[in-house]
Amino acid sequence: MSELNNLCGSKESKFFFKADFDISEYGILPEICETIVSTGFETPNAAPIGIIQKNGTTFVRIFKGSQTGENVFKEGVLVANVVYDPLLLVRATFSKLELSEFDFLKLDGRNFPVLKAALSWVAFRCVGCKTTGRALLAELLPLQAGFRAENRKATPGPNRGFNAVLEATVHATRYQLTGDEKYVGWIRHYEELVRKCGGEKEKEAINLLYNVLDFE
Amino acid sequence: MSELNNLCGSKESKFFFKADFDISEYGILPEICETIVSTGFETPNAAPIGIIQKNGTTFVRIFKGSQTGENVFKEGVLVANVVYDPLLLVRATFSKLELSEFDFLKLDGRNFPVLKAALSWVAFRCVGCKTTGRALLAELLPLQAGFRAENRKATPGPNRGFNAVLEATVHATRYQLTGDEKYVGWIRHYEELVRKCGGEKEKEAINLLYNVLDFE
Repeated sequence: MSELNNLCGSKESKFFFKADFDISEYGILPEICETIVSTGFETPNAAPIGIIQKNGTTFVRIFKGSQTGENVFKEGVLVANVVYDPLLLVRATFSKLELSEFDFLKLDGRNFPVLKAALSWVAFRCVGCKTTGRALLAELLPLQAGFRAENRKATPGPNRGFNAVLEATVHATRYQLTGDEKYVGWIRHYEELVRKCGGEKEKEAINLLYNVLDFE
Repeated sequence: MSELNNLCGSKESKFFFKADFDISEYGILPEICETIVSTGFETPNAAPIGIIQKNGTTFVRIFKGSQTGENVFKEGVLVANVVYDPLLLVRATFSKLELSEFDFLKLDGRNFPVLKAALSWVAFRCVGCKTTGRALLAELLPLQAGFRAENRKATPGPNRGFNAVLEATVHATRYQLTGDEKYVGWIRHYEELVRKCGGEKEKEAINLLYNVLDFE
């Protein structure tokens, strides 16, 4: 097992420096914050993943067979990006983002991929990785964090349309995994909400989701 | 009809100065942005109301019999507050906020109420008021806007728990208006989501909503 593999297995590794800051200052609040996680020093990858804060511990649950799961297991780190772009959310769920959509942050000699669209980001070390069923569980220790100044605008007021894109995406991934028709009803409900409350970007995002699912 | 009543009726009034800025810079994005609207120069009132931007026009649809509706009709102005406090959202929906929860902004000799919890706010003049069915429709022209520096932190990442409090609140008001049992199913669904994804504040908010509705 390589030194990098150890990173995900042991809390004692001194491979990366320690950091002590409050991740909520970068927008990652309890209990589950829906971020887009970027991984992969060489070939970056991005996927929507919830950062969970419970009983004083920060952790993630990642689908084992996914590229993110493989990268976390191999490299022992991930970057959680706070993003409010509904189209990027759907694209990151169902397709591979372009290399040009990432910036690279040099940390301890390695290239951490950060999404250019991020409002803020937190790079984490993943420790104590273990697999349960179809999931990879890893505790997260913050390494570094930052804002992307060019994206730092006023906090957008709550938008039920954006929220509905998020819900529809969650149900769509479950539908793809299980084929359970109950999810179709949810997705159609949220599509209506997007049409009623969302802006142009939210409508574009739900159209893409419908294309991916081959819905009409 | 007083000069103030005219304000809500006519676009030609020169009572307030004109302003030309982009409300999206204060977090109010299309198509419907869920804000908490504060009104009432003398006795401030607050209620969750969507600010609608459609075909180049900004407008609101307010329940006619409400305090907000009365104030808008009488005073011809409102303040839209961008707020991410789930408990305040539920409290403003079902009860009267304390006077101490408002600050007052002096504009043209009048005291515009702004929520202390607001991240940002936009004061609007309401023009062309008309009633359709149970709603009061008014076009909104921006007067002034600002941020509350003490609340200006990182944009919180999407939280399905917060979003679920918002959805539950919408369904709860419809349930109170109509008594239609279909809304109960929705509310219970969103309560589950709050328990799973929300932080302490979201859980407190859904507990309050359950108390208001006398649910268990």
